[in-house]
Amino acid sequence: MMHQAAIDLGVSLSVLADDRVDPAVAAGCRYEIGPCTDGAVLTRFAAGVDVVTFDHERTPAELAEALRRTGVEVRPGAAALRCAQDKVHARETFRSVGLPVPEFRWVAQRDPLEAIVALGEEWGWPLMLKHRFGGYDGRGVQRVDGPAMAAEVIAANDAPGGGWLVEAHVDMAVELAVLIARRPSGSRVTYPVIETVQVDGICSHLVMPARVPDVVASQAVALAERVADEIDAVGIVAVELFCTPAGEILINEIAVRPHNSGHATIEATATSQFENHLRAVLDWPLGDTAMRAPAAAMVNVLGGAAASDPAEQMKSALAVPRAHVHYYGKRHVPGRKLGHVTALGATPEEALAVATEAAARLAR
Amino acid sequence: MMHQAAIDLGVSLSVLADDRVDPAVAAGCRYEIGPCTDGAVLTRFAAGVDVVTFDHERTPAELAEALRRTGVEVRPGAAALRCAQDKVHARETFRSVGLPVPEFRWVAQRDPLEAIVALGEEWGWPLMLKHRFGGYDGRGVQRVDGPAMAAEVIAANDAPGGGWLVEAHVDMAVELAVLIARRPSGSRVTYPVIETVQVDGICSHLVMPARVPDVVASQAVALAERVADEIDAVGIVAVELFCTPAGEILINEIAVRPHNSGHATIEATATSQFENHLRAVLDWPLGDTAMRAPAAAMVNVLGGAAASDPAEQMKSALAVPRAHVHYYGKRHVPGRKLGHVTALGATPEEALAVATEAAARLAR
Repeated sequence: MMHQAAIDLGVSLSVLADDRVDPAVAAGCRYEIGPCTDGAVLTRFAAGVDVVTFDHERTPAELAEALRRTGVEVRPGAAALRCAQDKVHARETFRSVGLPVPEFRWVAQRDPLEAIVALGEEWGWPLMLKHRFGGYDGRGVQRVDGPAMAAEVIAANDAPGGGWLVEAHVDMAVELAVLIARRPSGSRVTYPVIETVQVDGICSHLVMPARVPDVVASQAVALAERVADEIDAVGIVAVELFCTPAGEILINEIAVRPHNSGHATIEATATSQFENHLRAVLDWPLGDTAMRAPAAAMVNVLGGAAASDPAEQMKSALAVPRAHVHYYGKRHVPGRKLGHVTALGATPEEALAVATEAAARLAR
Repeated sequence: MMHQAAIDLGVSLSVLADDRVDPAVAAGCRYEIGPCTDGAVLTRFAAGVDVVTFDHERTPAELAEALRRTGVEVRPGAAALRCAQDKVHARETFRSVGLPVPEFRWVAQRDPLEAIVALGEEWGWPLMLKHRFGGYDGRGVQRVDGPAMAAEVIAANDAPGGGWLVEAHVDMAVELAVLIARRPSGSRVTYPVIETVQVDGICSHLVMPARVPDVVASQAVALAERVADEIDAVGIVAVELFCTPAGEILINEIAVRPHNSGHATIEATATSQFENHLRAVLDWPLGDTAMRAPAAAMVNVLGGAAASDPAEQMKSALAVPRAHVHYYGKRHVPGRKLGHVTALGATPEEALAVATEAAARLAR
């Protein structure tokens, strides 16, 4: 999707891909194959480009920083990358400047059960046990209801790198995401607040703008803008937020790249997150983020139990009027995000109904 | 732009390009290099694809028909291609079924001046002298005010292939374009009527929907739909129309591919002409063509006298809020279409002001 935006801007993307089945390769980006965690590979790759940016968070912040020290523009920089890669560091960074985060403790000892049980007694069960590094789409995150379940989870996860991030469970009314595009100078634009719904830890669907009172939306935006500035984000930063029934907002996680929660911006706003990411990392003027319709919805398409005929599914989905289908050309894996559908509408419910129907036809 | 649409649909385009500087190559399409006017090249190329379609009109209809007879799906077919390639054939086809065209005569003799002057006396001057084949963007079209000018034009154009199409001059209030996407079965969708403005025969800008009375718009749509059906178009057909001050509508030219007059559909309508072209030639359900905003405008970016710094121009253009910039990555040639800018707005005038400003910055 970044490549599609790059074409309009006359920007030529080069992608460092793990392998040739990467969707960016299928989309026709120039590419090199190599591990993005290897400093020598990165240095060689970066020699041919003006700016290095990311569409994932797998390149260690230290490598990004080492690259920057050789004179390569790396955007976002290490401070932002580290917050996106290291949940404990992110929590500590935000808490240290007074930004609201869930109650948390980093438990790194070899046998963590005792400490975790003590936290359950202090904060009340359930607790959330999270891997410090590398979890996404619900992986590396477990909700435990009591000591026995905690013991089970610990036993099943032999020593995740970096120990456990233990969090008090937050009673959530709604989850929100705020996307911001930010230039190296700090100038930025903010998208309308997005309401996300996760199922089993994976984003199932979202609507924008979020159906929350204006005061909650304003608070979410203000919080996200402070996060973007604190970590000196460049490009898109997606700030995922918990909103409690009382209207309290807490920072959950951040991503410092175009994010699944922003896919609806392709149709729903004047400038997509992908175009604004490119503009931001190139230090070009940012595009307008206003909605093009009263409401929009996006539904992810997850791989079903068995692969089916993609062309037949596509035909069926395209028969749903006003559904905007995006198919990523990824290999079919059950549960994997294979595409998404966006719809615009007069109301979030109308848009969601359209996107849900088309996405269901693609996943069948 | 077709490649951008193809990515979303999971469709893999292969392009037969003249050379490696083709924008489709820069955009990352799979490609082969070869002349699209060579039957053997076409046959070899077509062996690897499901459907052959076109983004230009340079492949002779006979070659397309020969390919179809070998069992290849060629969409659109020869009847539609021939009408787009041969102005005399198109005029005769439309006139033979009672569709309104400007008064015309085909003048093919070796020394055509006498016949042309006679037509000027019969219909009145000025006349339009057009090449039968191959003219576009104002090339191959001349307005002549009297016998002396006609003699000059004839002398300067040594025997254009196929002789002259001589037309009575039409007093135009406005030029319109109607785009239709049509499937092999004949089912079709029609876009809102577009108002185009040519300068020196090249489309300068357009607004949609056209600022004409509803009755004129309805008549334009009805006419274009009859054209699409008559020539059995598959894919996008663009019907360019003259509208006289009295509200009479005449068919000017047609294109049987995504067309410059439809570029605004990328942002302005629910489904772009490029996506609907792909859907149509694949015989997939067609997408909604309704406007996403009250009005839209598109302004072409033509190459200036000298090439400038594209990145600086791009930054300047992107600073215009709500301008959607499309840069084609073509080599700079003065007068060549290098890109376009689209804007949506509450009124055509508002949209046009935005697009004009950004396009001027790109062409500077």
